[in-house]
Amino acid sequence: MNEELESLAVRLREFARERDWERFHTPKNLAMALAGEAGELVAEFQWLTAEESASPDADTLARIRAELGDVTLYLVRLADVLGVDLVAAATDKLADNERRYDATGYRGSARKAPPSA
Amino acid sequence: MNEELESLAVRLREFARERDWERFHTPKNLAMALAGEAGELVAEFQWLTAEESASPDADTLARIRAELGDVTLYLVRLADVLGVDLVAAATDKLADNERRYDATGYRGSARKAPPSA
Amino acid sequence: MNEELESLAVRLREFARERDWERFHTPKNLAMALAGEAGELVAEFQWLTAEESASPDADTLARIRAELGDVTLYLVRLADVLGVDLVAAATDKLADNERRYDATGYRGSARKAPPSA
Amino acid sequence: MNEELESLAVRLREFARERDWERFHTPKNLAMALAGEAGELVAEFQWLTAEESASPDADTLARIRAELGDVTLYLVRLADVLGVDLVAAATDKLADNERRYDATGYRGSARKAPPSA
Repeated sequence: MNEELESLAVRLREFARERDWERFHTPKNLAMALAGEAGELVAEFQWLTAEESASPDADTLARIRAELGDVTLYLVRLADVLGVDLVAAATDKLADNERRYDATGYRGSARKAPPSA
Repeated sequence: MNEELESLAVRLREFARERDWERFHTPKNLAMALAGEAGELVAEFQWLTAEESASPDADTLARIRAELGDVTLYLVRLADVLGVDLVAAATDKLADNERRYDATGYRGSARKAPPSA
Repeated sequence: MNEELESLAVRLREFARERDWERFHTPKNLAMALAGEAGELVAEFQWLTAEESASPDADTLARIRAELGDVTLYLVRLADVLGVDLVAAATDKLADNERRYDATGYRGSARKAPPSA
Repeated sequence: MNEELESLAVRLREFARERDWERFHTPKNLAMALAGEAGELVAEFQWLTAEESASPDADTLARIRAELGDVTLYLVRLADVLGVDLVAAATDKLADNERRYDATGYRGSARKAPPSA
């Protein structure tokens, strides 16, 4: 884990320990909390057009930033509890995607949209 | 943004540019993709007990790690497109939470569970 | 619960009982499964424009229909396990919304978008 | 669509029309709204044990019922906009599942948990 994410993980460990909330922080519960926050994030965008979503007004951006913060906190906490290095997991997945969707084959013309899964 | 997350963001920018996928990567669409991946992550835990979720077998952990990677990729890409620093957003939110749920008042006895929002 | 939803609920009870899956069908687990299916549903739309989403091609519509079916199954099963009448719950919520967002005040001009929550 | 769901769909059509919100109700946006509500629903269960989730106190049950209502409203509205019959879609999917997970093979012993997808 890189330094700043590791430092966040350490503060979250402390936060849970001081409140006696460690027993609530099972991976199952944290995954649910993450899904809940992802739901709040997507809800911020639900009535915006594509264009509006690309240049949200200051209030909307502040709410989106707060939701991004919440998602990050639960993601870092969940990865920490499971002993997973998030940056390594993401880097591996990106390398998979680079192989799977080679730039030439997926560029332009025929298949224009990225796959969903 | 810290160095490793920034480096991921740069690779994701390149990945989208090379495939001509930038027009798909609106914040609205990326928030949907993030919610979809959070759904796949939570699905990995849905039939596990709390205990099982804390010590998943090797195959399950590999699938969970891959989903954590996917969530991280879309989170980093969404934050990059919006110009949000994820670590700063998370740190601000954690500071809010530390104030809001003071360790003494929320510890032990009466109110035992963390709040949902 | 109305007749057809009740009949679905009964078949789902039987389905779980015959497979000895009742112990997996706690409300907590079923809510996770529903969130997972809602994630798959939203993923079907993530790269579509608003216009494309309104007239999906036959293959896409078939996949969307299957996801709508999955969401409905878990929603009906969850409500059944909790003893909640879905149509009554939805009708009550709609009545709340009709009061909260009165047609005259929310129509046209100034506040054009529906609220997110 | 059965009678009561059809009647809900008609009221929702009217609700959107009276507020001039039809242009917000694209399938894409409605799928996002549904995912957002599914996130709120899963959040209600996130810190509960399996046992607690099966017998929620009155306040929790009232909040869960309201979230189930919200999910149902967006599900019915989305299906209506797409011309999908929810009960038929769910019935088809259940028939698939009955074939796929035959009661004898999946009962008891070896493979005890239902599959995730």
